[in-house]
Amino acid sequence: MREIFSEELADLHVRFSEMGMLVNEAVYNSVKAFVNHDRELALEVIQNDEAINGREVDIEKRSFEMIALQQPVTSDLRMIVTIMKASSDLERMGDHAVSIAKSTIRVKGNTRVPEIEEDIAAMADVVKQMVEDVLDAYVKKDAQRARDIAQQDQQVNAAFKTIYDKCINEMQRDPETVVGSTDYMLVGTYLERVGDYVTNICEWIVYLKTNKLTELNVNNQETM
Amino acid sequence: MREIFSEELADLHVRFSEMGMLVNEAVYNSVKAFVNHDRELALEVIQNDEAINGREVDIEKRSFEMIALQQPVTSDLRMIVTIMKASSDLERMGDHAVSIAKSTIRVKGNTRVPEIEEDIAAMADVVKQMVEDVLDAYVKKDAQRARDIAQQDQQVNAAFKTIYDKCINEMQRDPETVVGSTDYMLVGTYLERVGDYVTNICEWIVYLKTNKLTELNVNNQETM
Repeated sequence: MREIFSEELADLHVRFSEMGMLVNEAVYNSVKAFVNHDRELALEVIQNDEAINGREVDIEKRSFEMIALQQPVTSDLRMIVTIMKASSDLERMGDHAVSIAKSTIRVKGNTRVPEIEEDIAAMADVVKQMVEDVLDAYVKKDAQRARDIAQQDQQVNAAFKTIYDKCINEMQRDPETVVGSTDYMLVGTYLERVGDYVTNICEWIVYLKTNKLTELNVNNQETM
Repeated sequence: MREIFSEELADLHVRFSEMGMLVNEAVYNSVKAFVNHDRELALEVIQNDEAINGREVDIEKRSFEMIALQQPVTSDLRMIVTIMKASSDLERMGDHAVSIAKSTIRVKGNTRVPEIEEDIAAMADVVKQMVEDVLDAYVKKDAQRARDIAQQDQQVNAAFKTIYDKCINEMQRDPETVVGSTDYMLVGTYLERVGDYVTNICEWIVYLKTNKLTELNVNNQETM
């Protein structure tokens, strides 16, 4: 029984990591599509979201069955609960990638502002690194690393603030850029939310180690 | 044992409903503060968020202990897992109320557009009703009602689209309104997200009844 449980738990970890990699790819590609005005890639991101949602349902189902059939306690149970919670966070990160992809399809043809697009690409790079790091920290159950990753979210929030300010300036300067700049701003908010979800997952990793639910970056989600 | 479990489960339901009412109040007050330019009320919403977060941690802890100590199966377990998941959704709805409250504090002094503020208030009324209804449907485990509530989210999305269009027009017409209209748009996105979270909770209610994770309003979260 115990051995079966360990195997199933290891399998659940693999599935969670795989889902994480799919989400990371979706976020990365959605921004890549956005700054390169690549509608094909944007459509691909939208189509792939179904697979991500399917992964969540699968993880959910397996977690539930493991709890029901094997009745794990303490750290094993905590591990499974964490995966259930964190997979919801991943799924929502995927939804934000879809939102960014939809912006790409919508934005085509508007006046563009290369400088802001570069800022968005740079912001996306930080977010991508955070997503990769959090998956790694999760696999290694590294609570200290999780705390460090959560700190990086301040960088993401600062990047959003910069993009916000530039968009405001741009829109005030030239009404032609209003539609495009609004899209930049919305894409910025989506990326910022992805950073918040990474912070949530960091909190789950800390929870695994400490058995305490801690809010990392308390002022984080409320920055804008 | 069984009796203790029933009592604890009933207690968990009460706590979940109470948390839901706090969140509903936060969302409602944040919009009220926003349209009435009421900084005091906005600050209150921000301060009260800590209590909402505390509720989530408390529900989390109790759920976990119930699973670990009483090892429930099938429908009992499903109920507890649902509460754990849905309380995360509630907590994030609270975070959005805080974001709206922060917009109120930020927006003071900008040129305002009464027509758009009325639209936001009307959108908030729909969202408020949805939150109330979903808590009620949850208590009654009414899956059909949950499906109906999820449908209303289309109305919320349509309301956001209207606000979006008006903000764009306004910003193009008068650069003075750029900062204010951007805030209207962001508040609109927060309310739209709250609607998405209500839809999530609807999905959990359907799950309780059917044992199936179904995506209600598949195109919902990706509308903008």
